[in-house]
Amino acid sequence: VTGATELVDRAAEREPRAVARLISLVEGGGAQLREVMAVVSPRTGDAQVIGLTGSPGVGKSTTTSALVAAYRARGCRVGVVAVDPSSPYSGGALLGDRVRMQDHSGDPDVYIRSMASRGHLGGLSRATPQAVRVLDAAGFDVVIIETVGVGQAEVDIAGIADTTLVLLAPGMGDAVQAAKAGILEVADVFVVNKADRDGADAAVRELKQMLSYADRAPGEWTPPIVRTVASAGEGIDGVVDAIASHREWLVSSGKLEERREHRAAAEIEAIALATVRAKFGELHGSTALAALSRRVADGELDAYAAADELVAGLTPA
Amino acid sequence: VTGATELVDRAAEREPRAVARLISLVEGGGAQLREVMAVVSPRTGDAQVIGLTGSPGVGKSTTTSALVAAYRARGCRVGVVAVDPSSPYSGGALLGDRVRMQDHSGDPDVYIRSMASRGHLGGLSRATPQAVRVLDAAGFDVVIIETVGVGQAEVDIAGIADTTLVLLAPGMGDAVQAAKAGILEVADVFVVNKADRDGADAAVRELKQMLSYADRAPGEWTPPIVRTVASAGEGIDGVVDAIASHREWLVSSGKLEERREHRAAAEIEAIALATVRAKFGELHGSTALAALSRRVADGELDAYAAADELVAGLTPA
Repeated sequence: VTGATELVDRAAEREPRAVARLISLVEGGGAQLREVMAVVSPRTGDAQVIGLTGSPGVGKSTTTSALVAAYRARGCRVGVVAVDPSSPYSGGALLGDRVRMQDHSGDPDVYIRSMASRGHLGGLSRATPQAVRVLDAAGFDVVIIETVGVGQAEVDIAGIADTTLVLLAPGMGDAVQAAKAGILEVADVFVVNKADRDGADAAVRELKQMLSYADRAPGEWTPPIVRTVASAGEGIDGVVDAIASHREWLVSSGKLEERREHRAAAEIEAIALATVRAKFGELHGSTALAALSRRVADGELDAYAAADELVAGLTPA
Repeated sequence: VTGATELVDRAAEREPRAVARLISLVEGGGAQLREVMAVVSPRTGDAQVIGLTGSPGVGKSTTTSALVAAYRARGCRVGVVAVDPSSPYSGGALLGDRVRMQDHSGDPDVYIRSMASRGHLGGLSRATPQAVRVLDAAGFDVVIIETVGVGQAEVDIAGIADTTLVLLAPGMGDAVQAAKAGILEVADVFVVNKADRDGADAAVRELKQMLSYADRAPGEWTPPIVRTVASAGEGIDGVVDAIASHREWLVSSGKLEERREHRAAAEIEAIALATVRAKFGELHGSTALAALSRRVADGELDAYAAADELVAGLTPA
C-alpha cells in the first residue's frame, strides 16, 4: 500500500474513511496487512481495550452504546469492534448504522465496525486483534470489542482485551451457564443488566456465591458485580468506575504488561505456525504432504516419521 | 522400548496385556510413542474403524455392546475405544469391566479401553488415533470408537472413523439438535435407538425430511436410517448391514483411500506443527519467543515481523 503511513496519519486526524480503509486492508490479509501492521504497531499501546461478552438477549449492544456515551462524556475517543454471528447486523455495517444513527451519529470521535465471526460456534474474526491495533494507532482512547458469549468467544476475547466484562440478565439461568462455560475465569467485571427486573437480586446473590468458591491468591483481582439498566443509562458510571479500578490494578500489579506480552506471544506463535503451515503446503512443488500422506495411509511410513520429513524439508541441508 | 516389536507380536497373538501396554505407551507420548508407532504403522490398514456418537442417554454403550456381540457372532475380533468425559466410567477401565462382565467377559477377541477426553466440551483423547492404530495392528478386525456427541467430538470422530454412526432416541429433540450441531454432515448411518418408544416414527420422519433437504451429488452416499432396540438386540443386524454397505461404497467409490489419505495428512501436519512449536520454544535457549513478545508488546516490532524472525530461527544461515 503506498501510503499506509499517510492512512494512519489521516486516521489519527479523525478521518473515519481512513480508519475504514485500514481495517479493510488488515481484513484482506497478505502483503497489505503486513505493511499496515508495520506502520501501525509502533503507534499502539495507549488504548484501553475492553471486551464485552454475554449470552444473546442480555443487552450487549445497548450496554455498548451506553458505554460509548459515557466515555464520550469523559472526552475519550471510542472505537467499537462488534463481532456477532447470530445478530441481524453481522453482515456488515448495520450495527454501525443503527447505533450511530441513534446516539453517535456524525460524531467523528466514535468509530463502530462490525466484523463477521470466524465460525458458527462463536469466536472472534481472524482480523479482530489487528483491527483493535488499528483503532489504537488511530488514537482511540477506548476500544470496545463486543461479541456474543458462546463457545470459544469469551476465551478469545479475554485473550485480546485488557478488561473483560461479562454481561448477565436476571432469570436467564445465566449464572449457572456462566460457571459451566468457564466465563467465571475470564470475567474481570460482571454486569447484571436489566437490574430493574425480577430476579436481579437472585442473580447477584448466585454470582457472589460462585465467586466466593473461587480460590484467589492474596493480591489477585476479585471481579466486582455492577447492576445496570443500560437502556436507561442507569449504572453505567459504575461500570466505567469498575473498569478504571481494574485498569489501576493491572498497572500497579504489573499484570497489564504481563497480559500484553502473553497476548503478543500467542499472536506471534499463531502467525509463525500459519507461515510454517503454508511452507509445508509449498514443499517440493506442493506435492510433499500428499506424497507423505499416501505413504502413511499405505502403512509404508508412520505419521511421526512423515512429520519429521516434513519438518526437515523446511531446512534444506 | 526394547521389545515394541515383541509387544505387537504378542498383541496380535491375542494377549490383552500386550495391547494394554502398547496403548499406555502411546498415551505416554515422547520417544516411546514414536517407537511403538514405527512398529505399528506398517501393520495397519486392515481394521474397519467405526465411530459411534450421540447425545447422553441415547444408549451408546448398550449399542456398542450389542455391536460387539454381533461382530463376534460373525467371527470378528473387536476392539473398543470409549471416550466419554461425562460418563461414570471415564476414569479408566470401568466400561471395560462393566461390559466385559456382562457380555464379553473372558473373551480374548474383545478388547475394551476407556480413554479420558481432551476437554470438557467433548473431543477425543489426543492419543485416540494412535490407540486405534495399535488395535488395527494387533489384528482386531473391527475397531469401534465410542464418544458422546458434543462440541467438537462428532467432527473429530468422523475424521478418524471409516464409518460414523450417529445415534438418536425418540422424543429428545435430537433431530433438531443434530441439524444444529452439524451432525448431519458427519453421519454415514443414523441409528434411531429405543425405537419401541413413542415418538420413534416422528424422529425417523423428521430425520428423513432433513436428509431430503441435503444437496447430494449423484453417486454420493445417502445415510440410511436404522431402527434399533439395542437393549434387546433388535435391529443390530440392520446396523451391521448398513455399515457393510457403506464400506462397499467407500471401497468402490475410492473414498476409503481418499478418506485415509486425508486423515493421514491431517495427522502428519498436526504432529509436524507440534514439533515446530516445540522448536520455537527452544530457540536461543528458550528466550527467543519471550524477547520477541516483549518487543511486540512495547511496539518496537510488529507481530508479523516477529513471526518472520521466529520462523527464520528454524533455519540457521
